[in-house]
Amino acid sequence: MSKKVLRLEGIYPPIPTPFDAEGKVATNALTENVRVWNQHKLRGYVVLGSNGELIMLDDRERLQVLETARAAIPSDKLMIAGTGCQSTVATVNLTRDAAKIGADAVLVLNPSYYKGRMTPEVLLRHFHTVADASPIPVILYNMPACTGIDLSAETVALIAEHENIIGIKDSGGNVVKIGDMRRLADRDFQVLAGSASFLLPALSMGAVGGVLALANIAPAQCLSIREHFLKGELDQARDLQVQMIPVNNAVTRGWGVPALKAAMDMLDTYGGPPRLPLLPLSKERAHELKAILRKAEVLTETASKENKEGW
Amino acid sequence: MSKKVLRLEGIYPPIPTPFDAEGKVATNALTENVRVWNQHKLRGYVVLGSNGELIMLDDRERLQVLETARAAIPSDKLMIAGTGCQSTVATVNLTRDAAKIGADAVLVLNPSYYKGRMTPEVLLRHFHTVADASPIPVILYNMPACTGIDLSAETVALIAEHENIIGIKDSGGNVVKIGDMRRLADRDFQVLAGSASFLLPALSMGAVGGVLALANIAPAQCLSIREHFLKGELDQARDLQVQMIPVNNAVTRGWGVPALKAAMDMLDTYGGPPRLPLLPLSKERAHELKAILRKAEVLTETASKENKEGW
Amino acid sequence: MSKKVLRLEGIYPPIPTPFDAEGKVATNALTENVRVWNQHKLRGYVVLGSNGELIMLDDRERLQVLETARAAIPSDKLMIAGTGCQSTVATVNLTRDAAKIGADAVLVLNPSYYKGRMTPEVLLRHFHTVADASPIPVILYNMPACTGIDLSAETVALIAEHENIIGIKDSGGNVVKIGDMRRLADRDFQVLAGSASFLLPALSMGAVGGVLALANIAPAQCLSIREHFLKGELDQARDLQVQMIPVNNAVTRGWGVPALKAAMDMLDTYGGPPRLPLLPLSKERAHELKAILRKAEVLTETASKENKEGW
Amino acid sequence: MSKKVLRLEGIYPPIPTPFDAEGKVATNALTENVRVWNQHKLRGYVVLGSNGELIMLDDRERLQVLETARAAIPSDKLMIAGTGCQSTVATVNLTRDAAKIGADAVLVLNPSYYKGRMTPEVLLRHFHTVADASPIPVILYNMPACTGIDLSAETVALIAEHENIIGIKDSGGNVVKIGDMRRLADRDFQVLAGSASFLLPALSMGAVGGVLALANIAPAQCLSIREHFLKGELDQARDLQVQMIPVNNAVTRGWGVPALKAAMDMLDTYGGPPRLPLLPLSKERAHELKAILRKAEVLTETASKENKEGW
Repeated sequence: MSKKVLRLEGIYPPIPTPFDAEGKVATNALTENVRVWNQHKLRGYVVLGSNGELIMLDDRERLQVLETARAAIPSDKLMIAGTGCQSTVATVNLTRDAAKIGADAVLVLNPSYYKGRMTPEVLLRHFHTVADASPIPVILYNMPACTGIDLSAETVALIAEHENIIGIKDSGGNVVKIGDMRRLADRDFQVLAGSASFLLPALSMGAVGGVLALANIAPAQCLSIREHFLKGELDQARDLQVQMIPVNNAVTRGWGVPALKAAMDMLDTYGGPPRLPLLPLSKERAHELKAILRKAEVLTETASKENKEGW
Repeated sequence: MSKKVLRLEGIYPPIPTPFDAEGKVATNALTENVRVWNQHKLRGYVVLGSNGELIMLDDRERLQVLETARAAIPSDKLMIAGTGCQSTVATVNLTRDAAKIGADAVLVLNPSYYKGRMTPEVLLRHFHTVADASPIPVILYNMPACTGIDLSAETVALIAEHENIIGIKDSGGNVVKIGDMRRLADRDFQVLAGSASFLLPALSMGAVGGVLALANIAPAQCLSIREHFLKGELDQARDLQVQMIPVNNAVTRGWGVPALKAAMDMLDTYGGPPRLPLLPLSKERAHELKAILRKAEVLTETASKENKEGW
Repeated sequence: MSKKVLRLEGIYPPIPTPFDAEGKVATNALTENVRVWNQHKLRGYVVLGSNGELIMLDDRERLQVLETARAAIPSDKLMIAGTGCQSTVATVNLTRDAAKIGADAVLVLNPSYYKGRMTPEVLLRHFHTVADASPIPVILYNMPACTGIDLSAETVALIAEHENIIGIKDSGGNVVKIGDMRRLADRDFQVLAGSASFLLPALSMGAVGGVLALANIAPAQCLSIREHFLKGELDQARDLQVQMIPVNNAVTRGWGVPALKAAMDMLDTYGGPPRLPLLPLSKERAHELKAILRKAEVLTETASKENKEGW
Repeated sequence: MSKKVLRLEGIYPPIPTPFDAEGKVATNALTENVRVWNQHKLRGYVVLGSNGELIMLDDRERLQVLETARAAIPSDKLMIAGTGCQSTVATVNLTRDAAKIGADAVLVLNPSYYKGRMTPEVLLRHFHTVADASPIPVILYNMPACTGIDLSAETVALIAEHENIIGIKDSGGNVVKIGDMRRLADRDFQVLAGSASFLLPALSMGAVGGVLALANIAPAQCLSIREHFLKGELDQARDLQVQMIPVNNAVTRGWGVPALKAAMDMLDTYGGPPRLPLLPLSKERAHELKAILRKAEVLTETASKENKEGW
């Protein structure tokens, strides 16, 4: 099997899991959101990533979200399912379930609880066990801000030798590492930028696209940065990239999932409340967020939901 | 309800969850281990802590371990159940289950996945929601080496205002913070050292005892350090404390749960394999570990299992 | 030469270098301050430590401060001179000058600029070169908050094999390491706590005293903590220790040298301005500081300078 | 005065200070090295940066190096002098001396010893005081690996409001920050990449060039990366960029100044020994380094000094 079978080039939003007022998974809202996003030339979706609150969901809810998403995502777009758990066997089980439901690939976050024990050897064994068991291709997921562990280029290259491991979403922001992964791993190994804040520099170092929280609320802009880059229009790419930084900060490391969901509510999608312990964005913060969205032209007269209450 | 109802003074091993060769929970071994530890004047046990591989177990296994432990722990010793999950509702559910099974208190690790969002406000809401819902007293669990978050004394003092939150297990090793928690929180708030490496200095700053991985393999020594301290025999306490540091390092931040289980196998208890992705201690490491145990007189001719194979 | 020749047991203030309104070294104020401190049973003084703004002084000023201090410090108290520079040869030169001026020992901070290069081998060579060249005993100085490097117990034990290296001031606050240094180094190797915030737990692990910024403004309390400890009065020691934490925080990691100097000005000593880039404490902060000093009874009616202006 | 008076676009090696076998500054070697580098289209040189071992030199040696360099650097190339000291007044004095000697600009590393005190206010006052006093333009220098402090984009933008502060050398490697500085500071504010490992992504985010240790040993390759980028030849730029990463790592965060000097000795320049506590590269490391230089084609038959001994 060649790693080129599944080409990842493109932009993916890691979609939030919507909850209703009682805290239950709002499957209708999820379906509706995907319908909105489908209007853009996104390559696909990541379901049950960090923004999908995977770790907040119980076993049943995880399958419910995957099934709902699969039904809503057209077959010409990829569905990538987040399936990384702390234990290897739990990761394998969720991976197999995702494949059965029809995911095109899985995105596997490294285990991280016993940080001192997560040696290259342990990680290699974990990922290769998962990749052996997975009926669909595996994409690594490096997310040091959540896991406290930053996979090195050397470790990634080692793990990437498995033929069923086709790429990585790297949210660490270290662009030198992206270059290093290119140097050390097979040329077919595909790197996706894990945050819109460094999309352009990641592309300049050889990334093939990105899984970007920002693509949930500004898909057109994310797609444009990449298109400008591909056309060699670096000045335009950079201007848009720089313009998006404050928006991206607000909905990622700044205020996180609550802000992303609030921004979605300000636009033409359903955000709703996060699950506890995450608290909804305060009114004050929501006002600041709105100003940031306006300044960056993500929120415009036409894009906003005029009658939305609460913000 | 006064916080003094449940007095925590004393030493607790955070007991590992034994697995058999097929990776299933070995309930008989768990029962047998507790029988061995019951010979010591331990105040009780922490079940499903970090050394109990809580995060590796599925829902059913967690209840199985709690039930097995409860049956084996005599009523004059405390059973403290680890119930901290990433979501508040999951934590509440496991806490209620633990109470039903007969736990005397719960030990609740803070959620940590969305590190940037774990503000004092979020943590306060989370812990108070759990404490409101819990039929039994709640003990906070601060474990920065695993969570990447170190609860500040100020945040702990704030959370500790809830009458059903009676203490903290602090594994961070910052003894100034132990003093600060004494200063800022109510005098009834009880601090337990989270590692044997700083048991004596923690006691000197007002800790009432400890939840110590080392107490699984060297309960007598852990108890002695505290007894010497209580009698004012500081030189003896210090000598024993210093003697235990290398053993403690080996089975905690050095080589972790695999080494703790290996050490148990060298002694009169069942350790067995950890669950993947954790790998069993290599033979080379096991030899080093044995030497460390011998040098510190934790492993002696009488204490070892002579016919044990594999080490 | 035996390491026991110079016994370090006791409490030392690391004295600030006073500057006048023009920013010049205020030698008279230095002399006067030492006269005030001499009334206490301090074991001696550290001159040109971090609080002495060593790195702010030019070569001439360093000698001026050492000479002034030596003249003011009685012969029954130790004068320990800070002489650590980034280059080995500069450290040797300042060490020799300090010896000529009459220092009893030198306190040598490790070089730290090229952090990645400060391997055990490099540090060993550096300290042994200095110790070979020094006519007086050498005390290591570990100060991770300023250097970004935390010397490990293993490295310290290796360096401590030199007969002219008699101890360490450790400001890192890791009391397990204090125990480990006791275990790994020669019994004659003397550990001094580097901050009053962990004086008691450090003593409980075998430290022989402390170099404490707090001793500049609360020498009696620092001495009392140690005396209570030596008499086995742990409760009293702990109460005083805990009471001092907020004061200590304020003048060390909280607001630093500017706050220490401001506190000195509120008491019976001369603090004066720090040297730029350090800015004097703002009026708001000074009010907060005064309240902290009052609450901890460091500042009382009799201790304060009633007619002091500006605070 | 407009910030555009001094245009920084281009590549600069931060040149090492050569020492002879006795440890004295080898002025002839410095002159000769500059003569070699002058054959390339470098925009200029940084003298007395981190690779210039500024912090290892005494006052007299600093002036000696600046004078020697100035004499060797042609007037159409810029000489940028490193003048950052821990005290503001020392920084001002060295800055004025550098201007008198003929430096075109100064590169000022932020003070960092009292890390907790280096607030935006303190840093602003420091840099503005220096910029007020400096007869020549000031370039900020952010070097978290050495200082332990990473200047934020917000703080840099604030400091950059001074008309005599024209740019920054940023060695932190955070390319998002480079974009953010572009967004927050005046468009005339010029960013120079501080390491060759992220030259290309930095350029993609708007950097105008780089101060690159690698440019001491591979000036042609560093210049080519930028030229390819300016021509829109991103694939070629990326290939060369990726090829240079291991070389750059070896002479920077890998083995540092000793490796840079060793590599210079392997090529057509004089490296010589670093100053203690830095130790020369071991023979084993030097062999590894040589292999790395060969593999990346930095060291070729024509480039190497065939009769060089010791490597």
